[in-house]
Amino acid sequence: MHGVFGRVLCSVLQVWRIRGDLMERVLLSHGGGGTMMEKLIEEVFADAFDNEYIRAMEDAALLFGNITLTTDSFTVKPLFFPGGDIGKLAVCGTVNDASMRGAKPLFLTAAFIIEEGFPVEDLKKIVKSMAEAAKEAGVKIVAGDTKVVEKGSVDRIFINTSGIGVLYEGANVSIKNAKPGDIVLISGTIGDHGMAVMSAREELQFDTPIFSDVAPLNGLIEKLMTLGEAIKVLRDPTRGGVAEVLYEISKMSGVGIKIYEEKLPVKESVKSACEFMGIDFLHLANEGKVVVVVERDYAEKALEIMKSHEYGKDAEIIGEVNDSKLVTINTIYGTSRIVDRPIGELLPRIC
Amino acid sequence: MHGVFGRVLCSVLQVWRIRGDLMERVLLSHGGGGTMMEKLIEEVFADAFDNEYIRAMEDAALLFGNITLTTDSFTVKPLFFPGGDIGKLAVCGTVNDASMRGAKPLFLTAAFIIEEGFPVEDLKKIVKSMAEAAKEAGVKIVAGDTKVVEKGSVDRIFINTSGIGVLYEGANVSIKNAKPGDIVLISGTIGDHGMAVMSAREELQFDTPIFSDVAPLNGLIEKLMTLGEAIKVLRDPTRGGVAEVLYEISKMSGVGIKIYEEKLPVKESVKSACEFMGIDFLHLANEGKVVVVVERDYAEKALEIMKSHEYGKDAEIIGEVNDSKLVTINTIYGTSRIVDRPIGELLPRIC
Repeated sequence: MHGVFGRVLCSVLQVWRIRGDLMERVLLSHGGGGTMMEKLIEEVFADAFDNEYIRAMEDAALLFGNITLTTDSFTVKPLFFPGGDIGKLAVCGTVNDASMRGAKPLFLTAAFIIEEGFPVEDLKKIVKSMAEAAKEAGVKIVAGDTKVVEKGSVDRIFINTSGIGVLYEGANVSIKNAKPGDIVLISGTIGDHGMAVMSAREELQFDTPIFSDVAPLNGLIEKLMTLGEAIKVLRDPTRGGVAEVLYEISKMSGVGIKIYEEKLPVKESVKSACEFMGIDFLHLANEGKVVVVVERDYAEKALEIMKSHEYGKDAEIIGEVNDSKLVTINTIYGTSRIVDRPIGELLPRIC
Repeated sequence: MHGVFGRVLCSVLQVWRIRGDLMERVLLSHGGGGTMMEKLIEEVFADAFDNEYIRAMEDAALLFGNITLTTDSFTVKPLFFPGGDIGKLAVCGTVNDASMRGAKPLFLTAAFIIEEGFPVEDLKKIVKSMAEAAKEAGVKIVAGDTKVVEKGSVDRIFINTSGIGVLYEGANVSIKNAKPGDIVLISGTIGDHGMAVMSAREELQFDTPIFSDVAPLNGLIEKLMTLGEAIKVLRDPTRGGVAEVLYEISKMSGVGIKIYEEKLPVKESVKSACEFMGIDFLHLANEGKVVVVVERDYAEKALEIMKSHEYGKDAEIIGEVNDSKLVTINTIYGTSRIVDRPIGELLPRIC
């Protein structure tokens, strides 16, 4: 337990340091998917690489009119956790990134950076897991790269996957598409991945074991996309969790979002662990969930489609879009408050 | 100097260990671009990910008939070396991979794994260098990812780039296309990158400083591709050097290759350093050179095109394809011998 609280303290200290030294060094919080990361991207990458694709700020770049391209590196620790491993994560993560743009993922690359001395048996397990996830998702791994570095130069193994997808017919999905009146859904329980990795790393014991939700969402998204342009926004709440996704939609679409606490699907085990540790489950990473913004008239239909799919059976309508520019939550106590936006990392190396 | 010799010894010991324990652990030599790496790929990746694209064993997968996809991770040490840095390398490496398939590179992704505490100023330098190389190559960086890991979990910064290109009109370039009678060319001096990085890392001093040749080759390749199908094979001799490329062409095309030592362009400084260290310059990495196999009748024209380009001014015809299945060299002493194929790593983290 000590480790977790230690990290929370570290996080607070880091924020303080950042304010002190005006970002002279890259900090863990810059990789956490919150405001710090946004700052790093804006100050270091956005201007240097500026072009119309970067400016779009989507999960995937759209090329040649209908082809999507994404990239993601995976550094999760531990490599094997309840419900998955770095291999499954690396395939699902990139499959999901293409899906979030309303595209059918087709091809992946896989690049490995491996520490000298890493057991070949573990590498084979990871590769098998990637192959299985790719098979489930119906994607092909078509190009790869392997680098081996000296002991101590990388913590065991890191994997990068990049992916290509093709837009579904009639798709018009964008982080900028939310309009007041639209309805917000989530495809299932919140925070499973974050809490599974945290408990594996800190060796926490719960009465009910918590498993990562890591899964390829392209099957679910393919069904949802039959609703065409009624599907406005798709975003997978990974680093920074559901809260960060809501803030990104709010910012990029120029709208407000109100969610209802009583509607949020959360496993009891995850909820108790969060309460015990003082963590907001809205900040926990998910690796097999999608936040969907849909036209109001199609909300029930979207919910039905999601509930009929294995990876959407716990789906719920969790809120709606308004014109307030704020991300708020109606609590179970009948009050309303601003949702906290994650600042830095809750837990480094969650994915 | 001690360090270099120490490594050569290590390398020999590693090969011995491998034979002893039947590859239970990943070794540095598995990342060196030689026979060990081929073994790792065959035993671990090829079967698990098996599909028609992987089986092609090309530098780039060919999708949708005319789109190429490649990936490469960069872990070079030191990050800044004479003639370039990890950023320039990361862009040029992937630009060149697309080019080697006879494609015009258009779009790149860039994924960063950064060690906590890495100076933001250095990150900005690297990003600027990437932006400049992308501008020179005429490619756009359209998607990215940033992960920050705890101090000690990665050696400063690793970068992955993946890239998309579009085949040039009439291109039919493949590692399998060499036929007896074809002519082999190289676009310039051999071993500059490998020796530049080695000297930077070992703090060697030479009378004439050695600079990396890292450069985007797409401009040169675009001119060469005006020769259409006469251009049979394009391959950039990176890890494993020119020797490894010749062996790959020999194996995949089922041919032999004879090269002429007197024709090999090598800078005097690189040649002396190699002799002093007992290294074969044919094993040294290059990051701005291409080995070209061309139809005999077009060899002079190809040489002329290359010589007229900034990055091909030292181009030479270095050999020819035969039906022997062997890779041989006619030495300056009038003898002929088999070219040594690199086994493991000559120098880890060369790119």
